[in-house]
Order: sequence, then C-alpha cells, then structure tokens
Amino acid sequence: MANLQHYLHEHIPLSKAMEVSVISCTEESVVLSAPLAPNINHRETVFGGSASAVAILSAWSLLHTRLCNADIKARLVIQRNTMNYELPIAGTFTATSSLEQPAQWSTFVRMLNKKGRARMSVLSRLTYDGQNVGLFTGEFVALGSEDA
Amino acid sequence: MANLQHYLHEHIPLSKAMEVSVISCTEESVVLSAPLAPNINHRETVFGGSASAVAILSAWSLLHTRLCNADIKARLVIQRNTMNYELPIAGTFTATSSLEQPAQWSTFVRMLNKKGRARMSVLSRLTYDGQNVGLFTGEFVALGSEDA
Repeated sequence: MANLQHYLHEHIPLSKAMEVSVISCTEESVVLSAPLAPNINHRETVFGGSASAVAILSAWSLLHTRLCNADIKARLVIQRNTMNYELPIAGTFTATSSLEQPAQWSTFVRMLNKKGRARMSVLSRLTYDGQNVGLFTGEFVALGSEDA
Repeated sequence: MANLQHYLHEHIPLSKAMEVSVISCTEESVVLSAPLAPNINHRETVFGGSASAVAILSAWSLLHTRLCNADIKARLVIQRNTMNYELPIAGTFTATSSLEQPAQWSTFVRMLNKKGRARMSVLSRLTYDGQNVGLFTGEFVALGSEDA
C-alpha cells in the first residue's frame, strides 16, 4: 500500500495534487481515497475531473498490482472509459476498482504472453458517505515486455 | 479569456495544479491548453486523468460561457462522459470543445426556462503536435435558477 502510494505520488504528480491515499490494495480490488479540498469545484463539491482521475488511478493500480504479482512486465495503456456521475460528492470519497470479468484474467495473461497484447475492462465504484456516487468503466490494453 | 482562466483557477484548484490556460473562448468553442510537466505519468506522457479533466473543463466552460452570454442563471452538472484515448500525448496539449448538436441550443434554452431542467451534449477534441489524440463526449444537465 505504502509502495503504491509512493509510486503514484512520485510518477503521477496529479495524484499528489489530488492528495490521493491508498486505503487497500489486493488482487481483487484497489481502494483509493481523496479529500474534498484539493478536488473542489465552484459548487463546493468534487470536480468531475478529479472523480474521474481517481477512478482511473484505482483501475490502473489494480492491473499494475496483478501484473507485478505475476511478475509480468507490460505497459498498460488506457484506451477508453465511461464515467457516470450519480450524486454530488461533498467530502472525502473513495474509488474501489475490480475486474469487470475476473474469470478472464487467465485468458488475458495467456494472450499477453502469446500475442504481446491483451485487453481488460476494469470497473471503479465511487462512494461518499456510505452512498454510491459514481461508476467508472475503463478499457485497458497491456503491451508485452518488449515495449514495457 | 482572462476572466474564465481566473474563474477556473480560483474555483477549481485542480485546474491550477494542471496549469490550464484559456487559449480562446467563444460561443462556438472553448480552447484550453495544459503543459506536460504537472500532468505527466510514469511513461512521461500525459496521465489519462489529466486529459479527461481538461476535456471536462473545456466542455463545461462552453456551456458556462453560453449561459452567461444569454444572461441565464443555471447550475451545470455533468451526468456522464466517455473518453477515447487515441494516441499518447508527449507535451503541451489542447482541448477544443463544441456542442454536439448546435442547432439544439434554442430547444435547450426553451426547456430550461419552461421546465427548469435541460440536457446538452458537448464534445471536446484533444490535440497534440497537430494530431488528434483523444475525443471526449459529455452529457450535462442545466438546472434552472432556483437551484443556481
């Protein structure tokens, strides 16, 4: 967890500007949190761009963690995402990522090893004050080690 | 332009952290720009969360500008967006917004006045070094003056 937070703050300065913290990091899910103040908008709720960026970080971090644990060197590129903003966020919020289809992980790894390229969708659920406030879906491509 | 930039930096601190500049601002389009350094990722290209956030700001700014010019007080809320990341961005990039269906503006204003609520889709095209590098589509809802 401390490693991931250090990595994000060091390599993606916007994560530091947004004061992103890593709450938990497992193979099932990465939970990130961010406070209101650095992410506030003109309505004193969280700016949509911050909500979306924290969701992207949690989704990317899950694939990054799984690839590291499997000792696979690959470059992860986001290709597309959708974000639904369900409710205004008036304080510290969390983004909890998960694979959209966990059963496809073994196929993803096999394709990555065989073709040097594989695709995976990752969800990130945003919550604030016990409520679901947003849902992100991102499609990532992993590119094999010659590019990594 | 200076007004809009001041407003964004003052009310949305992440726009200042991303060093967003307003390049132009008309009723047809708002063009924002952001440099690489504060928006960099671990691959030394622009973090997807920054690309997406600058696109959101350009889209929001276009509706905000049009509503201000028409002297309509309304609260703008983003409901949903999609973002396609087409190419890596290795330097200063721009986000150029436009209405998805400009001819629907008059309907939008009529609905907003009549029902206190209206919807509009805004595109934002990201460019870097003369190339199209990303495309954002956002759906916004405007809520009438009692909430504004």
